[in-house]
Amino acid sequence: MKIVVVLVLIQACWRCAEAHPLDPLTPSELNLVRTIITNSYPTSSSSNLTFQHVALDEPDKPQILSWLSSKSMAPPLPPRRAFVIARFQKQSLEITVDLSTRSIISTRVYKGHGFPTLTFVEQGLVSQLPFSYEPFKDSLNKRALNMSQVVCAAFTVGWFGAEKTKRVVKVKCYYTNGTANLYARPLEGVAMVADLDEMRILSFSDRFGIPVPKAEGTEYRLSKLKPPFGPKLNGVNVTQPHGPGFTIDGHSVSWGNWKFHLGFDFQVGAIISLASIYDIEKQRYREVLYRGFISEVFVPYQDPTEEWYYTTYFDCGEYGFGQSASSLEPLTDCPPNAHFLDAFYADANGNPVKITNAFCIFEKHAGDIMWRHTEIAIPNQLITEVRADVSLVVRMVSTVGNYDYVIDWEFKPSGSIKFGVGLTGILGMKGGTYINTDQIKGETDIHGTLLADNTIGVYHDHFFTYYLDLDIDGQRNSFVKTTLQTQKVKDPKIPRKSYWTTVSETAKTEADGRVKLGLEAAELAVVNPNKKTKRGNKTGYRLLPGSVAHPLLVSDDYPQIRGAFSNYNVWVTPYNKSEKWAAGLFVDRSRGDDTLAVKSRKNREIENEDIVLWYTMGLHHVPSQEDYPVMPTLSVGFELRPTNFFEANPVLKAIVN
Amino acid sequence: MKIVVVLVLIQACWRCAEAHPLDPLTPSELNLVRTIITNSYPTSSSSNLTFQHVALDEPDKPQILSWLSSKSMAPPLPPRRAFVIARFQKQSLEITVDLSTRSIISTRVYKGHGFPTLTFVEQGLVSQLPFSYEPFKDSLNKRALNMSQVVCAAFTVGWFGAEKTKRVVKVKCYYTNGTANLYARPLEGVAMVADLDEMRILSFSDRFGIPVPKAEGTEYRLSKLKPPFGPKLNGVNVTQPHGPGFTIDGHSVSWGNWKFHLGFDFQVGAIISLASIYDIEKQRYREVLYRGFISEVFVPYQDPTEEWYYTTYFDCGEYGFGQSASSLEPLTDCPPNAHFLDAFYADANGNPVKITNAFCIFEKHAGDIMWRHTEIAIPNQLITEVRADVSLVVRMVSTVGNYDYVIDWEFKPSGSIKFGVGLTGILGMKGGTYINTDQIKGETDIHGTLLADNTIGVYHDHFFTYYLDLDIDGQRNSFVKTTLQTQKVKDPKIPRKSYWTTVSETAKTEADGRVKLGLEAAELAVVNPNKKTKRGNKTGYRLLPGSVAHPLLVSDDYPQIRGAFSNYNVWVTPYNKSEKWAAGLFVDRSRGDDTLAVKSRKNREIENEDIVLWYTMGLHHVPSQEDYPVMPTLSVGFELRPTNFFEANPVLKAIVN
Repeated sequence: MKIVVVLVLIQACWRCAEAHPLDPLTPSELNLVRTIITNSYPTSSSSNLTFQHVALDEPDKPQILSWLSSKSMAPPLPPRRAFVIARFQKQSLEITVDLSTRSIISTRVYKGHGFPTLTFVEQGLVSQLPFSYEPFKDSLNKRALNMSQVVCAAFTVGWFGAEKTKRVVKVKCYYTNGTANLYARPLEGVAMVADLDEMRILSFSDRFGIPVPKAEGTEYRLSKLKPPFGPKLNGVNVTQPHGPGFTIDGHSVSWGNWKFHLGFDFQVGAIISLASIYDIEKQRYREVLYRGFISEVFVPYQDPTEEWYYTTYFDCGEYGFGQSASSLEPLTDCPPNAHFLDAFYADANGNPVKITNAFCIFEKHAGDIMWRHTEIAIPNQLITEVRADVSLVVRMVSTVGNYDYVIDWEFKPSGSIKFGVGLTGILGMKGGTYINTDQIKGETDIHGTLLADNTIGVYHDHFFTYYLDLDIDGQRNSFVKTTLQTQKVKDPKIPRKSYWTTVSETAKTEADGRVKLGLEAAELAVVNPNKKTKRGNKTGYRLLPGSVAHPLLVSDDYPQIRGAFSNYNVWVTPYNKSEKWAAGLFVDRSRGDDTLAVKSRKNREIENEDIVLWYTMGLHHVPSQEDYPVMPTLSVGFELRPTNFFEANPVLKAIVN
Repeated sequence: MKIVVVLVLIQACWRCAEAHPLDPLTPSELNLVRTIITNSYPTSSSSNLTFQHVALDEPDKPQILSWLSSKSMAPPLPPRRAFVIARFQKQSLEITVDLSTRSIISTRVYKGHGFPTLTFVEQGLVSQLPFSYEPFKDSLNKRALNMSQVVCAAFTVGWFGAEKTKRVVKVKCYYTNGTANLYARPLEGVAMVADLDEMRILSFSDRFGIPVPKAEGTEYRLSKLKPPFGPKLNGVNVTQPHGPGFTIDGHSVSWGNWKFHLGFDFQVGAIISLASIYDIEKQRYREVLYRGFISEVFVPYQDPTEEWYYTTYFDCGEYGFGQSASSLEPLTDCPPNAHFLDAFYADANGNPVKITNAFCIFEKHAGDIMWRHTEIAIPNQLITEVRADVSLVVRMVSTVGNYDYVIDWEFKPSGSIKFGVGLTGILGMKGGTYINTDQIKGETDIHGTLLADNTIGVYHDHFFTYYLDLDIDGQRNSFVKTTLQTQKVKDPKIPRKSYWTTVSETAKTEADGRVKLGLEAAELAVVNPNKKTKRGNKTGYRLLPGSVAHPLLVSDDYPQIRGAFSNYNVWVTPYNKSEKWAAGLFVDRSRGDDTLAVKSRKNREIENEDIVLWYTMGLHHVPSQEDYPVMPTLSVGFELRPTNFFEANPVLKAIVN
């Protein structure tokens, strides 16, 4: 009963919230953006205007910081602005709208390479084209497939050196007859190229007829599955006698010693801003993370054949990680004590679309230990002191076609932020003629794992590039690499021969800030060289990497040029509001001329500057049969951990009620 | 109320359990061992006999497997035997006792290098010696320290090339006055060498007098801490409406699709045996892990000075990871739904000692997602299918002096076993003259981090070497390394330049089974080459490594010779019952002549043999101020994950009630 009351209070507060300059655009603001822009670009049958990307044009950092530090009770918000990419007359327009003056304050026709994110509307439209396209219908007839059971989808085609590129996608189709798992039943060999601006099919190929993999064994809906069921597992009820420990005021969340702002963006999904931690000794909040989000997810498949070579996705830039957010299911996607938040984005017509339960926020009680010690060395005393751990998780799930990414931000009272990615959903699968590996002769490479009859799970990678604008105790920070180096013992009285010690180097320019992990023992930290502990150590946060992978494509291959931000696991750049996108802003068919790798070539000063840490967590995925027909979650993650940020253990005096 | 009933049932079953040949020695068996041996070695004032290591001498694998496969209802147990290392007349005796015939069946005087594990009794006795040793009392007087507040402890001294070694330890002392955190208040500069067999101090040095670090800020007991308290966090109540999902019968645990045996050993702590998973399609249990445990924990400190250079611990072999198991505290060490089990070991006199709550077993509901997918591509349908995750955790905490290791075995319904280590407790700290890093001039190396006034947290490593006798679908297995290799595209019609593919190599001999991680993209698996899936893939389990570290000592340095098993992250050896100990069996003062590295030099055949995978997870620890006065848990872990072991996702049809 108590919980219900508290939830109502949270809900109430959500409604009555004070506006924050980093709040995502509200439905009424999205409507206003649409009105302002469509008034300036009246559409006709021949010149349609579509909204490809509508986002808050967040105020620049000094404006936010000045708003934050304002002494007044309700300081005026910086101007609310929207940034819009629209397609109009086969051009990409970059439009900035001022919402208070209800005016367009800048418009630019984008002349560079690449195109904006695909909207769901155009993906839906283009996926319908085959059904009125005669050659495709003939192909279906030839295969005796029931058209009403065929589903098509649009796939970005990348860029492979062509001088002139149009806004085209591949359209590939699947047979659903008897299953929801379309990806398991590809019509391999049949492909179309369609123009998104003209919304028509440009070319069609039906290269070979191989059996569509059968439906049996592909289903994953409980209602369609047949016994035997199992394993049977017991669930749990969670009650919080003292209620939830967090409060949500608008998009501002506070819990334990943490407070932060949770935004939502069409392209990247969750944005955590202004994460600060309360220092109980200093009795004030201290800045940790100004702004963090997943800037890009690069997913190159590794099959060089005609039907697959171009499959090298950029899930944020091409498909919109926020647009692709799935509504979370209470009790399964998130535990019983979770609180849910909705999100809004603009569709192709500029209309607000609500994603119900786009986020959940919950206190995680995983049964872990925050810290402990048992002491038996003191005679006649047995001391055991233990604190149970609890953390706060912000979760979203982005489903980009077949793949579901479970994105967790976990805030720990100890000051750590853990970044988790759970990979689940459905593999990218290719049809084939094999039903047993025995049939694969000699040098033949099937570029994947044989998962089922006629079904190959194609090799691929995932590179998750996080934008992490750490502001440790303020804006001016440095990136320090501390290498652990073997030393020889020189004192002849000491019989030991060696030991290691630490050698710290502060990165002066961007070139110094590039790190390939795995080559040497090193600790990487962002520190504030101007703020030291009482002991004289620089206050900092350390990156504890997880799931390190390096690209295996040659560096001058087209996908790798576009995904060149994966060439290093770590990059450090000076803060620049416009540099948010690891792959650039116009990623569909991009040529890699606007990536983080290109920006980093400027080799700017990064010592004692406002810097951004870019960290890429990656994995190579060799599918296994267990990944079929739906993948058990594979979890990877990394951690930002305070290192000499606090004078001592910040949870020494934690109280868990 | 329901839960209480279920717990009573578990308790009842625990009492009525059938004996299992891998059960650890019971208190009455330990008593019997003591009686049998002391009858053969009557002690006198001049020739004391001590029990250094008493363990089940487990039946050899064929005996266990034959017992398991017996069709009879209650097959006779293989002979119950105990293996004992005793010290008698300054010699180490290896004694095998048959419990059914109540007789010693073999005795061997150990003639090799090294000594057995230190008992708590002798550590306690040797720690008292300084208080009746005049030079030490003089040192205390000189420093005006109150002797009743001084605590001493015994530290193994390693081996640094000496031709003749005695069974000695260093005795170092601490001041507790006003704190339970003795490690934070070392009497730096004062050290004694004591002989464990003669139980007397051999040498004493008082090299320098520096201030004992002050007590302020060192305390970690809640009752002694002063405001401000915080962060204040809300706890959770967990109820299981369907009760716990596991049953415990003696030491046999079954839960969901898993069953396994949980043993306890003086030297290594938890031993998981006979872990099998139920295959719902094949409708039978399938073997995964015959036997697994942490064979050794190597902790070399990195300070080459007189008082610290020898500090290179082997926590299992020198201190007994099982002997050092801490009693777990309900509600903090383990969640509210945990069930606890006791363990027993023999003390120096052979008497059984009970460790209350040595293990806890609980279902972990961390709010994770077992698998999910949202499908929007099918017109007019929105499909979302999600399964919440749950796993079973077996936990123990081993506290070796200052450090607390939280050891988790997590069984997942998907077939994965996750191995977690949480590092918490108290740092190894050194006294010093500095109170600020500004005082450290020029080339001076303090070999650690300045944590507090006069307090340095010394650099060190942890290498956790797991013994994993995987029996994938039976005993004969192979170790396969699958390298991901870049290929150039040869087809001129394809504009892409490169891709990666997999090249698998089966290790033929032990030399092929050694792997240094981090150098190349590779997947490591243990497979059964004789059992294939319907698709023709070899059934296997894959190692997903975590926290990779390589030793930084030179390879011919004495500690590294003794810890040479850390030279590779992975070793594969043929099963041999006697090869359980990565550092050898007599580890204290060992010379590295009995390590895994030496055994692996035989370069035995390992293809299609009964093989053991040895995996070393490591980390270099550069302490930070947050680690003071007690360390927030740092969690590391790795995973064994089925790879083509099942025909398809084994949790596709999981039911979570």
